[in-house]
Amino acid sequence: MRVSICRWAHFNAAHKLHNDHWSDEKNKAVFGKCNNPNYHGHNYEMEVTLTGEIDPDTGYLFDLANLKEIIKTEIEDRYDHKNLNLDCPEFKENNPTAELICIEIYKLLRAKIDEKMDINLRLWETPRNSVIYPPVC
Amino acid sequence: MRVSICRWAHFNAAHKLHNDHWSDEKNKAVFGKCNNPNYHGHNYEMEVTLTGEIDPDTGYLFDLANLKEIIKTEIEDRYDHKNLNLDCPEFKENNPTAELICIEIYKLLRAKIDEKMDINLRLWETPRNSVIYPPVC
Amino acid sequence: MRVSICRWAHFNAAHKLHNDHWSDEKNKAVFGKCNNPNYHGHNYEMEVTLTGEIDPDTGYLFDLANLKEIIKTEIEDRYDHKNLNLDCPEFKENNPTAELICIEIYKLLRAKIDEKMDINLRLWETPRNSVIYPPVC
Amino acid sequence: MRVSICRWAHFNAAHKLHNDHWSDEKNKAVFGKCNNPNYHGHNYEMEVTLTGEIDPDTGYLFDLANLKEIIKTEIEDRYDHKNLNLDCPEFKENNPTAELICIEIYKLLRAKIDEKMDINLRLWETPRNSVIYPPVC
Amino acid sequence: MRVSICRWAHFNAAHKLHNDHWSDEKNKAVFGKCNNPNYHGHNYEMEVTLTGEIDPDTGYLFDLANLKEIIKTEIEDRYDHKNLNLDCPEFKENNPTAELICIEIYKLLRAKIDEKMDINLRLWETPRNSVIYPPVC
Amino acid sequence: MRVSICRWAHFNAAHKLHNDHWSDEKNKAVFGKCNNPNYHGHNYEMEVTLTGEIDPDTGYLFDLANLKEIIKTEIEDRYDHKNLNLDCPEFKENNPTAELICIEIYKLLRAKIDEKMDINLRLWETPRNSVIYPPVC
Repeated sequence: MRVSICRWAHFNAAHKLHNDHWSDEKNKAVFGKCNNPNYHGHNYEMEVTLTGEIDPDTGYLFDLANLKEIIKTEIEDRYDHKNLNLDCPEFKENNPTAELICIEIYKLLRAKIDEKMDINLRLWETPRNSVIYPPVC
Repeated sequence: MRVSICRWAHFNAAHKLHNDHWSDEKNKAVFGKCNNPNYHGHNYEMEVTLTGEIDPDTGYLFDLANLKEIIKTEIEDRYDHKNLNLDCPEFKENNPTAELICIEIYKLLRAKIDEKMDINLRLWETPRNSVIYPPVC
Repeated sequence: MRVSICRWAHFNAAHKLHNDHWSDEKNKAVFGKCNNPNYHGHNYEMEVTLTGEIDPDTGYLFDLANLKEIIKTEIEDRYDHKNLNLDCPEFKENNPTAELICIEIYKLLRAKIDEKMDINLRLWETPRNSVIYPPVC
Repeated sequence: MRVSICRWAHFNAAHKLHNDHWSDEKNKAVFGKCNNPNYHGHNYEMEVTLTGEIDPDTGYLFDLANLKEIIKTEIEDRYDHKNLNLDCPEFKENNPTAELICIEIYKLLRAKIDEKMDINLRLWETPRNSVIYPPVC
Repeated sequence: MRVSICRWAHFNAAHKLHNDHWSDEKNKAVFGKCNNPNYHGHNYEMEVTLTGEIDPDTGYLFDLANLKEIIKTEIEDRYDHKNLNLDCPEFKENNPTAELICIEIYKLLRAKIDEKMDINLRLWETPRNSVIYPPVC
Repeated sequence: MRVSICRWAHFNAAHKLHNDHWSDEKNKAVFGKCNNPNYHGHNYEMEVTLTGEIDPDTGYLFDLANLKEIIKTEIEDRYDHKNLNLDCPEFKENNPTAELICIEIYKLLRAKIDEKMDINLRLWETPRNSVIYPPVC
């Protein structure tokens, strides 16, 4: 019996969007307010979905206390109350857009969760904007 | 790298549900309170999801300021503070059910967004009722 | 032991804002999109708060099943799936702004709930706009 | 024209998680606080999604008043204000985890809704934990 | 400079409503589904508001990490994943209605937070029903 | 007829908490993760409540389009996508805690809104933490 379970988590971080290969004018034109050199920030909310077979002994797909701990250690400790551009080496080259943050979180969780489980992620940068990875279609 | 992004929008409108080929009795029986000839209304909330390849120069799938503008011009300007039956020609023949409003919005956005992007829509008529198009399966 | 209890309810209605003593131009200038002669509509959400003494035999301030029934009979049956301007005589003279709808609901509930209970109301016209009556200060 | 519609519902219930074939120590170790022999409880919120062809005469996929009645009769009357372990025979053998409750609800609805309609379910045990069945992938 | 701060918390518990001095019939008539002898349960959500003077050295009214710890120790450890009737002596005599649970939580916090701070509480038993103590008027 | 109306708004900003008169150790001990020298950030959500007399000609307390414009010009243009410590002179001396940001917003609105209207503010730094000014008691 295959099901999906979803667990909610969150972290607060500062970032700015910037392409080092571009002029200040082009950065400003493309990224607008998100290009403020002094940074701005967000309350990121995320939903982690795991899909696989239910354990017949427990009726659980995955122990949520364990999932909560993995999310805390791998994601929240890494990104919560951080400046994504300055404190996180993965965003030296990569612009910390919601799209690329979501993919980084996927890779971090993928490395820690048994391959028998599929992982789907949704990351909200604001209550009005979010990213889904892998994509919906 | 293919991802999906989601953007939230909303409009407020009046409507009634009615089939011109039916008697008043049948309309009342089928559509109940939604058949009030004087109309009623809703705060429609919608979520537009685009799916495609991330632009490696920006880390964006699609510029959200641009998406916000397309939604405003194509959807909000057309439906916000309108009577869907009286003010919108597409609902002269088509009953403005949430199902058919959602499909109309899809067509309006599809005409303005590059075919390389897939579009998925969800439209809430109330916080308890919503429609998804294309369907989930 | 005096406490307050809150109960959530909702209704969907059409309305327009208009002052019959004004020219069309002035109505348009003051009420903007809300003046559409064909009406628009909202999902109104409301929270009814009662304040009084707890009944020591039940530990209840007021039986919620009873409160739910009063709200249904007095408010939802009157306003749900209605056109406030056309179907509700109290808005022939009174413009159905959120402010005045909230005060009308207060009067309707006040007439049906024992005077020993204080009533406080909040009415949301959209998730972003609401009215509180009696006022907060 | 194929679409999906979603309807929200809810019920409040008590439960405990326990495997009768295990020692108390093992039950405690695996299920933690959820193993309290005196039970605890939740406000379960659920979203029922139906997918199929729109009826061209109504513009409806499925009459929501009918869907609401089916959910009330089959799910809410069965689980609302119940102890899932003691009052519901389906959870004598089956541990009432969110995963297995969701699958039971699916079966109950599947038996009452025309096979032409696909059913998708999401069940929230808390605002932070939910289950999706059939799974997302 | 006097302000209020609010902190959100939650616990999940089972309960039933019952007056030992009444017949089964009267209990059933008054408490309805809430009188199920096998219990039912809720996700209780609460908001704790403290009011007082801002500390000029920190700009804080109260250290939120400290408030979070007090709420955990005094409220969540006491009520989370518990049966309020069976596991909590304060509800042997007192019916665990939302009204009386809210007042108990007030007393527990009042005993641990400096008297210079005023405390206001709101407790949701469901997303639709809540209690406020002290009362709003 | 005196009522209150509430309008929702939001801005995204970076900040850090720090007292220049303290050692790094004391700052770290008091402000914890909020003291990260590279900043972190939040989606601030705010609710502005105005209280006064309804205009009998319109049924409005205050034109919401006007209130929305004042909030945009005075608050969102000043704080949205900014670093509160670096970009906003009012937080050179003042630590940008939620408490002090809320009071600053109050002053900015108070200077632009007719004294006949009372102003009440609530500012959420996260969905779980908020500040109310003037205080609730």
